[in-house]
Amino acid sequence: MSADFDLCKIDQVGWERTSSHFVDAGPHVGVEQATFRTPARASASWTIVHRKAAVAIAPMLDDGRLVLLSQERIPVQRMTWEFPAGQIDAPLAEVSKELVDRAAITELREELGAELAKGATLQPLGWYFPSPGFTQEHIYLFLARPVRIVAQATPQHGESFGDVRYVTPDELRDMIARNEINNSLTLALFAKLTALRLID
Amino acid sequence: MSADFDLCKIDQVGWERTSSHFVDAGPHVGVEQATFRTPARASASWTIVHRKAAVAIAPMLDDGRLVLLSQERIPVQRMTWEFPAGQIDAPLAEVSKELVDRAAITELREELGAELAKGATLQPLGWYFPSPGFTQEHIYLFLARPVRIVAQATPQHGESFGDVRYVTPDELRDMIARNEINNSLTLALFAKLTALRLID
Repeated sequence: MSADFDLCKIDQVGWERTSSHFVDAGPHVGVEQATFRTPARASASWTIVHRKAAVAIAPMLDDGRLVLLSQERIPVQRMTWEFPAGQIDAPLAEVSKELVDRAAITELREELGAELAKGATLQPLGWYFPSPGFTQEHIYLFLARPVRIVAQATPQHGESFGDVRYVTPDELRDMIARNEINNSLTLALFAKLTALRLID
Repeated sequence: MSADFDLCKIDQVGWERTSSHFVDAGPHVGVEQATFRTPARASASWTIVHRKAAVAIAPMLDDGRLVLLSQERIPVQRMTWEFPAGQIDAPLAEVSKELVDRAAITELREELGAELAKGATLQPLGWYFPSPGFTQEHIYLFLARPVRIVAQATPQHGESFGDVRYVTPDELRDMIARNEINNSLTLALFAKLTALRLID
């Protein structure tokens, strides 16, 4: 089911954090001013925004359609069409395959009222960095198929959902071509599904 | 050349910022605690990390191969294979088609020593939000073809480049399938090139 799961580790061999100072940026964002010795540099200073790891899931119905939801995204002041996603509510050092899988199942339920149908698989598709120039945030990607919608969505604190849309892979492709989809997690999942030939 | 260029505006009709306070998060990151009246909510408080707009360019040679470079990314402590990209060095309110185009040309030259060949086009492919849950950062996407490599790369302050690699679309697809490419800008460009049928 998840034989290919790969845990994303940030701390790397050959890298040494030679200084670190967290500035007070309020309760919701971790902002670190750090200095590193790296494989290429004797000393490099950087400001790093810290975020929890996250999951994003492409949910596929048994007829091959994919499920998108629209979501109000405050920082960009608009509704965006996205695959379901959410943060993994654990310190980074404690993130495990089990927690990642569980977060994916939880997001399907909370954001879509969806669950894995009988015999379904939650297939890991790797992970990616949304903006590695300034944040260590990383998002695990999955294909869940088949899913079925069994309940109402249950938005959590800070979430505001709009409509749900069932799209064929061709319709998803057209939405991307027309820039109607413009968030990295949905683009990354489309890239993975295409590269792995999981959609036509 | 850029008939389809679309400027990404953050401030939207129907949204009102009812309070705003920037916390002191150091010289490199803008962190705002703001409250909004939104189309769906009477009041929503959010922490927003502010970044300059950016560009990312898929450079294609006249033989159809694409050009990747590896780059040391401090926040994620590794080298990553990416298309050339960089920030637009202007306040958001001043960003224009001309500045975006110029930034794309500049990044091709600085990161790859590349320039547009005779008769080449810099084709806009839209823009995307790397992580719209916490930052308004947005990245304009382009296909530049054909490009030619005419000089050495000239890394700017804070940049550290490694190798350059020329890949066919199939090789790019395989790198994505194997999770050897894991940054949103390269995945987003692949998604756009695929959705627009600009690569096979």
